[in-house]
Amino acid sequence: MLELRYLASELAAKVQGTLVGQDLYISGIATLATASSSDISFLSNSRYSSQLSSTLAGVVLVKSSDQAAVVGCAIVVDDPYLSYAKISALFDTTSDHGVGVHASAWVASDASIDPSAYISPGAVIEAGASIGARVFVGSNTVVGAGASVGADSRLAANVTLYPGVSIGQRCLIHSAAVIGSDGFGFAPNKGRWQKISQLGSVVIGDNVEVGAGTTIDRGALNDTVIEQGVKLDNQIQIAHNVVVGENTAIAGGCAIAGSTKVGKQCTIAGMSGITGHLEIADGTHITAMTLVSRSITEPGAYSSGTALEPHRSWKRNAVRFRQLDELTQRVKELEKLVMQLSQEGQDK
Amino acid sequence: MLELRYLASELAAKVQGTLVGQDLYISGIATLATASSSDISFLSNSRYSSQLSSTLAGVVLVKSSDQAAVVGCAIVVDDPYLSYAKISALFDTTSDHGVGVHASAWVASDASIDPSAYISPGAVIEAGASIGARVFVGSNTVVGAGASVGADSRLAANVTLYPGVSIGQRCLIHSAAVIGSDGFGFAPNKGRWQKISQLGSVVIGDNVEVGAGTTIDRGALNDTVIEQGVKLDNQIQIAHNVVVGENTAIAGGCAIAGSTKVGKQCTIAGMSGITGHLEIADGTHITAMTLVSRSITEPGAYSSGTALEPHRSWKRNAVRFRQLDELTQRVKELEKLVMQLSQEGQDK
Amino acid sequence: MLELRYLASELAAKVQGTLVGQDLYISGIATLATASSSDISFLSNSRYSSQLSSTLAGVVLVKSSDQAAVVGCAIVVDDPYLSYAKISALFDTTSDHGVGVHASAWVASDASIDPSAYISPGAVIEAGASIGARVFVGSNTVVGAGASVGADSRLAANVTLYPGVSIGQRCLIHSAAVIGSDGFGFAPNKGRWQKISQLGSVVIGDNVEVGAGTTIDRGALNDTVIEQGVKLDNQIQIAHNVVVGENTAIAGGCAIAGSTKVGKQCTIAGMSGITGHLEIADGTHITAMTLVSRSITEPGAYSSGTALEPHRSWKRNAVRFRQLDELTQRVKELEKLVMQLSQEGQDK
Repeated sequence: MLELRYLASELAAKVQGTLVGQDLYISGIATLATASSSDISFLSNSRYSSQLSSTLAGVVLVKSSDQAAVVGCAIVVDDPYLSYAKISALFDTTSDHGVGVHASAWVASDASIDPSAYISPGAVIEAGASIGARVFVGSNTVVGAGASVGADSRLAANVTLYPGVSIGQRCLIHSAAVIGSDGFGFAPNKGRWQKISQLGSVVIGDNVEVGAGTTIDRGALNDTVIEQGVKLDNQIQIAHNVVVGENTAIAGGCAIAGSTKVGKQCTIAGMSGITGHLEIADGTHITAMTLVSRSITEPGAYSSGTALEPHRSWKRNAVRFRQLDELTQRVKELEKLVMQLSQEGQDK
Repeated sequence: MLELRYLASELAAKVQGTLVGQDLYISGIATLATASSSDISFLSNSRYSSQLSSTLAGVVLVKSSDQAAVVGCAIVVDDPYLSYAKISALFDTTSDHGVGVHASAWVASDASIDPSAYISPGAVIEAGASIGARVFVGSNTVVGAGASVGADSRLAANVTLYPGVSIGQRCLIHSAAVIGSDGFGFAPNKGRWQKISQLGSVVIGDNVEVGAGTTIDRGALNDTVIEQGVKLDNQIQIAHNVVVGENTAIAGGCAIAGSTKVGKQCTIAGMSGITGHLEIADGTHITAMTLVSRSITEPGAYSSGTALEPHRSWKRNAVRFRQLDELTQRVKELEKLVMQLSQEGQDK
Repeated sequence: MLELRYLASELAAKVQGTLVGQDLYISGIATLATASSSDISFLSNSRYSSQLSSTLAGVVLVKSSDQAAVVGCAIVVDDPYLSYAKISALFDTTSDHGVGVHASAWVASDASIDPSAYISPGAVIEAGASIGARVFVGSNTVVGAGASVGADSRLAANVTLYPGVSIGQRCLIHSAAVIGSDGFGFAPNKGRWQKISQLGSVVIGDNVEVGAGTTIDRGALNDTVIEQGVKLDNQIQIAHNVVVGENTAIAGGCAIAGSTKVGKQCTIAGMSGITGHLEIADGTHITAMTLVSRSITEPGAYSSGTALEPHRSWKRNAVRFRQLDELTQRVKELEKLVMQLSQEGQDK
């Protein structure tokens, strides 16, 4: 692999920062604790400020208020974390790829493959599918009949796109993700289940990231929609006809049930669930392992569940939870009695 | 693609309904809000009855009590939702497939492939496997050695069947599903784990649907069993030696731990868990994100967890939960004191 | 398939046990309830001791205290469950495999494949990858560029290893597992998300088992680390830069958020979550569906959530949970009032 190397001044220019100290070559990026003299590092959390004095980093991205504490070179920026994010891309070589169709891939004769795209070994592109410019299709990935992938998108290895789904531009779909599987729709029929054919599709906007093992079902009649800029972590389940609004980020292990509409710029922490047919307001934040079972009309942070405790005391409290309504009644009764007693005392 | 087209009278006959109004050609199926004049639609939820007056649908499936409100044609049926389900299948072309083995698939010389089955590009059928009549095996799917797939079943792309598993007839297995992986069995051995070889298999009955990313482990000694008519949504985990009874439906993200026996015709809502070695009665309903940690002997609905609330108030209440047993003791003490005071008041 | 057959005396020797009764050939292993006369069985849970009198098993692994109750032959051992685990391996033929690269697999010219390894049909070994001695790579599995797999490890079908990840010796990775996908890292940028390139890797120690559908993300800068002897069940999500300590076992459906460090010899029951940047002490046990949202410094068992109850009473109690802080204040108030009344009573 070719070593990547940048001048600190180039990096500063890239993030509109000011280089303080002598220019030098930087060939890597690392945390303050592990950086060497050829690395760039960053301070975004004041918890780590003490490491500024000991880090070996060649240059450190800092806010102006932290600059004085840097021993060597600094690049002063408004937002060191964002600057780190931008610079990290310069050290990322995974998006480089060749062009063409690998001999061991199989492409249907009527599929359309942009000549600048790359189809990896073992991949299958089915009839009528369309692969845009500079797209990367990973090894053994399957693009179903009539599915389309927009320019500059990247499907990792072992991804599955079902027939007809549509992926925007600059998307990244990770391995074992499944897009376009049937929604879970059945009508009860005398103790059995009559399948409802899932005739809608999935439409994914631009700049969407879909994590490993995440599944997005096709709609029953209309489409399931993931709007532009949405970021989905691993092992998320999106049911049929869900709409996820622009730039919403959802962490690993969440599930959203059918026809629910999640707003824009929400954040949903890991292992949370949202039941079906709800509307979640733009700018809603859900904490980890929360069950959302009603619509949310006001943005803000929401939670459910109980907090961690030793199993022994938890067990006692959990027993009491099942008596909580009764306990509340007992307190109500006590309040009445005490008020009476109080009244009687005053009467005497 | 060939356009599908049916006379409204044909559709009425299909669902044993009565066509009210003039016959016409129908070429699609849609919701009341989005239907055009060549679509059939349906009203199954009274919440949407007001849409009957505005829908453009060519014909609408309704109960007799709603027929008067339909502006155009109606098909009167007992159960519009079930009728919609049946008619949806007429517009579903995904089950059409060719026959034979694609040139890029690999089939072991001693595997048995019915001549009416289709093996897609990149699929692998290992030694001694058996593929029944009219079966569809999707691209890059792997059928392990000695596994069998019953007639009219469909494996989507990138499915994995481990060696020896048995799939019934008319099953549908979605992408990234894994059937027959090792159960999680280890014996403690001086701080390490001694693997227990998982020597059982998985037996799946007829008419079972398995969702994308769902995993079903093989048994330790006996088999893991999914009985006929069971519907499993996406990303469900079924551990070794579980039995899921006929026509039970389980929503996305649930997990069932080892050796638990779930009854027939249960419904388990999303993200629920059932711990190991339990028995769940036929006809049990579990609400979303519930932990079932004891056997259920009476059918009915069961729940655990707490309800959604703003994070700020949740935090205060969660702190109090950890003091709930203590609070209950305090109330008990108050009851004693108040009874004493009450007694003393009467004595005076 | 060749039938496996052992003398009971051989099996006894294998587990350092004592054969009581006449030697015989054993060709299978089964539970007490299902064993035939050519099977070995075991009693590890006193719940099943009554089956000792009715089992047809040819020989039974028991503790010395149970030997008297065995009707036929017994092998007396210290730990029947551990002995069963060891003997189960003798009846397991899944680890047998041929050598070489299947004609339908694709191996990059500069990948290194040990001649004793086997690469199954449709598998893809990308540039610079390294496959150790006696490794088994399943059908349609993808080993990314530069990834390495240690001797005697086994990758099932449809596994994905991303570029650069490192798997130890004697590991077992199940189907649809994904190792090395991008961590979920984004910096907020004016309402959008700026991707942080995930430049670290994943390092997995020796004797690790990774379940079906489990996903392990690569680190942002440093590596994600799974130490030796760790056992991960199905559909677990391990985020970037997590460290899981030696011999920890994690059950299905758990998720561990970024940079959390789980200690050695922990057990984490199914569907539990651990939030990011925490430290969990060695020897911690987490019960099912628990959310760990703070570090744990003392080993022991921990829980969160509430216990199962009928939905009707749960609903009432869940309403009261949202009033729990208020209820606690009401009890406090009552305590004050009652103390006053009590005081006044004494004053009279």
